[in-house]
Amino acid sequence: MSISHSPARQPPAPRLDLDEAAAHARRAAVLASVESILGWDEQTMLPPAGGAHRADQVAAVASLAHSLRTDPAQGDRLERLAVAMEGGDWSADERATVLRLLRDYRKHVRLPARLVEETARACIEGQQAWVDARRRSDWKGFAPKLAHIVALKREQASCQSPDLDPYDSLLDDHEPGARASDVSALFDRLRPSLVPLVRACTGAPHAPLDDVLRGQFPRGAQEVFVRTVAERIGFDFNRGRLDSSEHPFCSTTGPHDCRITTRWDESYLPTALFGVLHEAGHGLYEQGLREQAFGLPGGEAASLGIHESQSRLWENLVGRSLPFWEWCLPLARTMFPAALSETSPESVQRSLLAVRPSLIRVEADEVTYNLHVMLRFDLERALVRGELAVADLPSAWDDRFEQDFGIRPANAAEGVLQDIHWSAGLIGYFPTYTLGNVYAAQMMAAIERDLPALPVELAAGRFGSLLGWLRERVHHHGRLIDPGRLVAAATGGPISERWLVESLWKRYGSAHGLAQRPPA
Amino acid sequence: MSISHSPARQPPAPRLDLDEAAAHARRAAVLASVESILGWDEQTMLPPAGGAHRADQVAAVASLAHSLRTDPAQGDRLERLAVAMEGGDWSADERATVLRLLRDYRKHVRLPARLVEETARACIEGQQAWVDARRRSDWKGFAPKLAHIVALKREQASCQSPDLDPYDSLLDDHEPGARASDVSALFDRLRPSLVPLVRACTGAPHAPLDDVLRGQFPRGAQEVFVRTVAERIGFDFNRGRLDSSEHPFCSTTGPHDCRITTRWDESYLPTALFGVLHEAGHGLYEQGLREQAFGLPGGEAASLGIHESQSRLWENLVGRSLPFWEWCLPLARTMFPAALSETSPESVQRSLLAVRPSLIRVEADEVTYNLHVMLRFDLERALVRGELAVADLPSAWDDRFEQDFGIRPANAAEGVLQDIHWSAGLIGYFPTYTLGNVYAAQMMAAIERDLPALPVELAAGRFGSLLGWLRERVHHHGRLIDPGRLVAAATGGPISERWLVESLWKRYGSAHGLAQRPPA
Repeated sequence: MSISHSPARQPPAPRLDLDEAAAHARRAAVLASVESILGWDEQTMLPPAGGAHRADQVAAVASLAHSLRTDPAQGDRLERLAVAMEGGDWSADERATVLRLLRDYRKHVRLPARLVEETARACIEGQQAWVDARRRSDWKGFAPKLAHIVALKREQASCQSPDLDPYDSLLDDHEPGARASDVSALFDRLRPSLVPLVRACTGAPHAPLDDVLRGQFPRGAQEVFVRTVAERIGFDFNRGRLDSSEHPFCSTTGPHDCRITTRWDESYLPTALFGVLHEAGHGLYEQGLREQAFGLPGGEAASLGIHESQSRLWENLVGRSLPFWEWCLPLARTMFPAALSETSPESVQRSLLAVRPSLIRVEADEVTYNLHVMLRFDLERALVRGELAVADLPSAWDDRFEQDFGIRPANAAEGVLQDIHWSAGLIGYFPTYTLGNVYAAQMMAAIERDLPALPVELAAGRFGSLLGWLRERVHHHGRLIDPGRLVAAATGGPISERWLVESLWKRYGSAHGLAQRPPA
Repeated sequence: MSISHSPARQPPAPRLDLDEAAAHARRAAVLASVESILGWDEQTMLPPAGGAHRADQVAAVASLAHSLRTDPAQGDRLERLAVAMEGGDWSADERATVLRLLRDYRKHVRLPARLVEETARACIEGQQAWVDARRRSDWKGFAPKLAHIVALKREQASCQSPDLDPYDSLLDDHEPGARASDVSALFDRLRPSLVPLVRACTGAPHAPLDDVLRGQFPRGAQEVFVRTVAERIGFDFNRGRLDSSEHPFCSTTGPHDCRITTRWDESYLPTALFGVLHEAGHGLYEQGLREQAFGLPGGEAASLGIHESQSRLWENLVGRSLPFWEWCLPLARTMFPAALSETSPESVQRSLLAVRPSLIRVEADEVTYNLHVMLRFDLERALVRGELAVADLPSAWDDRFEQDFGIRPANAAEGVLQDIHWSAGLIGYFPTYTLGNVYAAQMMAAIERDLPALPVELAAGRFGSLLGWLRERVHHHGRLIDPGRLVAAATGGPISERWLVESLWKRYGSAHGLAQRPPA
């Protein structure tokens, strides 16, 4: 670097460091977004024979992104900034930005490039193997791939955060600051309220049936319908897409490019609709992040738990509410007149609150869902701790499932092979689903206090106040605030499972005609 | 590098160099294939607002690919290999591989990284600006972007090949070894045969009309139809896709991932069908390259002219032939019974040979097409030489067009703005279209000698012998042989425009009832 001709006009050195650190972080984010495109394309577009080369592409880009993220010049800049920020005139956002970039840097720099590239490749190949294994219910062929991935993730865990328990290290990647002991304690408080609710619902004499939205729903009309709903709740198709995939997902590949997917069942409308409400909930969060902060903590999601709170809020707390169906049913009826001629908003809404223990998590109702998550949390924690061998996973799964649900999977495809996550190296991810439910219920309780007219607005198809609340209280903060503090600041109280328990008992109790209240 | 423990078992150093050079070239090709995915996605999937970020992504990957391609260690290896290969036991393929990798390296290493990144970005932004400019027929808004691109390409030309004329330097990127003076001489020999043929056809008393395949052709049935045709001629959908785009193209994003697109007109079947025949022709070439040589000259296309010869051969010499329609019309009739009830293979084939001077190259008939190309070749050559300013391009275009075709574009959208190429930095590309026509006609003449049963086979929907001939004589050689020698070896004679002239006069003369023969 040459000395400036007019040094008096230059910003002071730490300001320059901050600008350069931000530019560097953005460059890494651009490469990460290329990885996202490759991932999205793999799940929606890739020809069957293209898998091996896709793994090469992802591994190459992941390795380059890792080099950029671990550039020692960036580390030096961030360390200098952290010292400079002990004094001086810095905003809270600037301090939080540097703190988080430095935290990321220290984590990444401890990972050997070889491990990053091997993990990227193993996870792509793992996902491809999983698709095939699940189709053929072939655990034996898949197990060695999973064992390799678990070994790599354990190595990653101990490299990146040597001072943390290995499972906590992986959990922290998805939910910054969360610790397994806290999650476990929260789950232990939740479970005694969920199990009796499941029992009460399944034993209720007049339990709702999920048969109201069954019928003939042609694919083409469904596409128009779900797209209309997504647009109406605020998803911006100028900055996004909707496609099909085997498992719905949301992928953000740039500040103005957020892609969601769903799947289709021509005999059951909720499959596509709730896929879209869920993924559009994620998408609204991504589209609500500050675009000018792309690639910086201020423009990135706070955590997977916060992400899931957004998807769950739209899917369950909006999409399964009566006011929503007061607006949505007339719209649906214009597109599916024959199938919906004899329905009412009340009958639709009640049918969407049917509770039935079942084998597949992604088809589970809102109440039993959290039991699916707890099972996975305990099993993956045991895997990472070395207390459970990959070879013993299917029987451990089946035993625990039978104990929790009273039914036993008949094969691996409807048991241990049902989820893509582990095959993709996503360990420490499952608990964020239930954290998301907890956060969503707590947010909705606050929203109902803050926006008393919300039911009237939803019934008129007006979603702007609700989205505005989420934008202001959640989206706009990016990950400048850790999830626990973010939820507390947005809702006015510390994180508690209380709101989820109350919400489930109130809504499901009412739909099932239960007199009983949640256990004290 | 450490000394091996068992040096006697190691391959000799130059062999190791060759292995490492090949591995390095493959790594660069993997990154280039990521660029291809980004390009394909941009033209088929990208949300409207995603353009600016896509430019960032492409520029980032292009810059990393350039670093890899210009790695001095690779240069040293290749220089050592070139010396080692003056003696020793090397195959012709190995020598050709090293020669070409070294030629590429020397070219790339002369390009400053700044120029590569700026060009990648300017071309992405140029294409996005072009889409908008063409839609609004707004030359003024587009001209500064194009002027910037032309300046960058001139800089690139003089950097990469300082010993060549700048236009030759760019032409060589697309057609290795070709020189503008030779192309110009070939065009000068071709033109005196084409102009009288156009005049004779347009003046013929019983000229065919392109009205036989007009009618109602629903999009869904067209999709099934063109996919069936593409599969039947040999396109492997296990290793490829077919999508829609404004301008049909073929993009290869891996050894087992070749993607073609077409566009649709529900009132005119040939729009989609000939788009697919053309792009599948490109795709068959890509799918015929040796997969084990991916990323090496043995697994890459010989040139754009050779590529175009494959697309044109399937589009024009197969797709506009009577035997093809003897097979294809019954198939089409099963899908479009009403529209095709009164047609015969003869009437379809004759209608596909209508000649009519028109404004748009991609809609041009096979005869006038080459006049469109010659116009672009002369104009872009003048641009690169600095004999024509970008500001003067529209009037130069319109004047020349009127002189060649007797009609004048009413606006820029149907004149100078009609093609994407220049906006994408593809200068020196257009002449390869007519070279492709010349090569294709010469190949087809050889094929008709070698495969006398071909018409019978085509009429039965059997395309295997034809594809086998192309695989063996063209595809399998990759770019280990330069285009001129490749065509000569495949056909048994030096490149000549004679076969194209004969083919056009024979087929179009017959369809138009001309007694006249081509001028001597």
